[in-house]
Amino acid sequence: MSDRIHTSIGGSTPDSITVAGRDLPSEVMGKLSLTELAYLLLTGREPSVGERRMLDAVLVSLADHGLTPIALAARMTYTGAPESVQGAVASGLLGSRIEFLGPAGDTAEFLAAVVSGDGDLVAAVDARIAADQRVPGLGHPVHREFDPRTPRIYELAAEEGVLGPHLALLETLPGIVADRTGKRLPINGAGAAGAALVDVGVPPSSVRGFVLIARTAGIVAHLAEEARDPIGMKLWQEVERRSST
Amino acid sequence: MSDRIHTSIGGSTPDSITVAGRDLPSEVMGKLSLTELAYLLLTGREPSVGERRMLDAVLVSLADHGLTPIALAARMTYTGAPESVQGAVASGLLGSRIEFLGPAGDTAEFLAAVVSGDGDLVAAVDARIAADQRVPGLGHPVHREFDPRTPRIYELAAEEGVLGPHLALLETLPGIVADRTGKRLPINGAGAAGAALVDVGVPPSSVRGFVLIARTAGIVAHLAEEARDPIGMKLWQEVERRSST
Amino acid sequence: MSDRIHTSIGGSTPDSITVAGRDLPSEVMGKLSLTELAYLLLTGREPSVGERRMLDAVLVSLADHGLTPIALAARMTYTGAPESVQGAVASGLLGSRIEFLGPAGDTAEFLAAVVSGDGDLVAAVDARIAADQRVPGLGHPVHREFDPRTPRIYELAAEEGVLGPHLALLETLPGIVADRTGKRLPINGAGAAGAALVDVGVPPSSVRGFVLIARTAGIVAHLAEEARDPIGMKLWQEVERRSST
Amino acid sequence: MSDRIHTSIGGSTPDSITVAGRDLPSEVMGKLSLTELAYLLLTGREPSVGERRMLDAVLVSLADHGLTPIALAARMTYTGAPESVQGAVASGLLGSRIEFLGPAGDTAEFLAAVVSGDGDLVAAVDARIAADQRVPGLGHPVHREFDPRTPRIYELAAEEGVLGPHLALLETLPGIVADRTGKRLPINGAGAAGAALVDVGVPPSSVRGFVLIARTAGIVAHLAEEARDPIGMKLWQEVERRSST
Repeated sequence: MSDRIHTSIGGSTPDSITVAGRDLPSEVMGKLSLTELAYLLLTGREPSVGERRMLDAVLVSLADHGLTPIALAARMTYTGAPESVQGAVASGLLGSRIEFLGPAGDTAEFLAAVVSGDGDLVAAVDARIAADQRVPGLGHPVHREFDPRTPRIYELAAEEGVLGPHLALLETLPGIVADRTGKRLPINGAGAAGAALVDVGVPPSSVRGFVLIARTAGIVAHLAEEARDPIGMKLWQEVERRSST
Repeated sequence: MSDRIHTSIGGSTPDSITVAGRDLPSEVMGKLSLTELAYLLLTGREPSVGERRMLDAVLVSLADHGLTPIALAARMTYTGAPESVQGAVASGLLGSRIEFLGPAGDTAEFLAAVVSGDGDLVAAVDARIAADQRVPGLGHPVHREFDPRTPRIYELAAEEGVLGPHLALLETLPGIVADRTGKRLPINGAGAAGAALVDVGVPPSSVRGFVLIARTAGIVAHLAEEARDPIGMKLWQEVERRSST
Repeated sequence: MSDRIHTSIGGSTPDSITVAGRDLPSEVMGKLSLTELAYLLLTGREPSVGERRMLDAVLVSLADHGLTPIALAARMTYTGAPESVQGAVASGLLGSRIEFLGPAGDTAEFLAAVVSGDGDLVAAVDARIAADQRVPGLGHPVHREFDPRTPRIYELAAEEGVLGPHLALLETLPGIVADRTGKRLPINGAGAAGAALVDVGVPPSSVRGFVLIARTAGIVAHLAEEARDPIGMKLWQEVERRSST
Repeated sequence: MSDRIHTSIGGSTPDSITVAGRDLPSEVMGKLSLTELAYLLLTGREPSVGERRMLDAVLVSLADHGLTPIALAARMTYTGAPESVQGAVASGLLGSRIEFLGPAGDTAEFLAAVVSGDGDLVAAVDARIAADQRVPGLGHPVHREFDPRTPRIYELAAEEGVLGPHLALLETLPGIVADRTGKRLPINGAGAAGAALVDVGVPPSSVRGFVLIARTAGIVAHLAEEARDPIGMKLWQEVERRSST
């Protein structure tokens, strides 16, 4: 075992700080946005202008969905421990899996396996159905007919010339699934987001983490609102009243 | 108690999604960066071009500092539960308080209380010293003489015309403290970041949360690297060996 | 810096496991309860029969308080990420501070400082009031007149002969505070719990952590119930409906 | 949708507190240990004397394994945010999945499906192998030949007359797997723990949560030690040094 421990994310000496191999003050601060730095850290290069617009469009599309369990958990945790903002943010992120942000990562990995494999989406869908597993990227509990984020992602991808094989494949998924199951489900916004991120170069295995950056922004906004205009205490008292009568 | 529950962060109906009171697909996606949306959610308005450059400069300055306890906790949690990226990110954020990201929020609140109060920084410093409390914004365990982020933040603030009362006040802090204690400590990057954020309009009480958005980006990058090139398992085995011999 | 890393909590070799310096299979399993092991790990000795009864009485008194923000945060996180029980438990624990479990630790540390100092509780109360800080251990949002756990803790401490200086001091606290502020507040159950734990030998700085063991048991029970009979989804849908109409 | 929200875990009125349907002060405090209450909350009944001894033996066997990633993540988080014990405990629990505590739950659910199904363990093993999934309950990264907890769990189960179908089935698992794969792996302690918990009545789906109670005790002990004798700061400095040279 070597004595060296290596990271290429960042490091410091008493008089310098390096992030992604660049000098932080002179080469990153004032030059890159947070979105660009996040991309640089995951891919090793800066996004093009079009890629950056797509990255931001996807991130803002996943930042918040109102008073979901994620926001409610964060607000409840803040109610119980208002001194620890980091605890309340962590609590919100912990619910960001199956129903909410996970589908972006699941869709990214599902489509990327097809694209980097034999390209046969029909076979991949059949394998999921045979194994009694959900086909990712389709359907939404609220947006049952139509997810308004999806066409916007396709539109932006076309505008910026970054509509790649993952978004293209995803477009054919509703038809394949309808063929197999008789159910026509719309492409959901999280699924389109996952495909778009892979098309602009985010590694499929990093999609799940990447979207958490956006969700942190949404949770932080909920906590600022909770501090001004609390929902947590009100909900608690109401639940208490309704459970004790 | 009213039956209504109000949030102005976001909401959805079956065919529309609203964030910060705007239609997500047509008014946010493709128009705002993640940084701009985070700012809009906390302040109710979009940043100017100069404010946005400052916001991004501050965020990228706090995204990562290498293999700190934050990154190590996230990587260790990933080692124990690799299926849950959100758990590993949460674990990293949970350590983001006293030594690392907290100082940005502490400095923001300390300076904002002076600016919105009687403006007497000397009295505020004396009160801290009398109460045996740390004066925030000064000193750093690694950058003992000089924090390379600090002059860059002042330079950018001047360039963009957003050097406001909080950064101005902070500049006088090392002298006041040296006067009282005999110790000359440099302004640290987190302190300058906190002052800069308040100068561009982030509410002081939201600074602590705002910087967590940046730190999430850094943690996500560490976890992507950990998946490719693990440190957690290696450290664990080494600790194990060194604790049992 | 030494190459050795030391812990006295536990360790293993390929064919043995040690906890608290004892051989796990032969000296701990079948011999100690979880409560006894937790005490042994924190104090270095086994509790007496009376101490153990007190420890368990305190732990069961803090295991649950119904649908508090702690339980609601855990259930909401489970709603969003049901595959990760550890995430939902963590989310519940993260809210266990100011209003709920923190007071046990705060009271323990407050009283222990008096007992190990000059014994002057009146002066300690005055110092808190002068610094505009809460005096811990008194008052409760629900049990305004009387906390039913408090007399039971005193009764058990008397029965087992473990009523020590911390519980004794706490008994005089309501009178001292009423004297100063005109408000008569009852000793709350968390405060009595904190004092009782210190009286049976738990280090004051460990009280805050010790009570989390009990709370984990309560949260785990809420999550088992949530899996059978979900509240999270129902509350979410209701909040959604009430926020969008 | 009914206006009532139901929980059978606990509740309070201004002058009473109920846990598991019992009056907390008179029927739980001084009567039940934490282990007994945890069992009562999950099963609706008190354990027998033999069941309780088994429950405690299993819990103490999983409370700690030394400086694992779980303990290291908790200690690192404490290093970064020492004011928040609940955050450091949460951080430790978040790593308690695949390698460490998850196997108890996985084994419990795997064996329970066989016992409550057709009883054919061989077919269940073959299905796992065919699906390229791990057979739970066998093998350990440190205790490669023999896990010292396993024979002790069987011995105690026999002594107390609680050796039921899950432990019995598990005993045959190494032979079945060796038959199929040619590899002889020992029953690990977590697997035996999971089987034993189901044999004494813990619902299989609650095993994963139940063992977190024990782990919280271990993490709390690590944090108390970390406060006295820090490893986090030392490891951080060392990693820093080794990554920057």
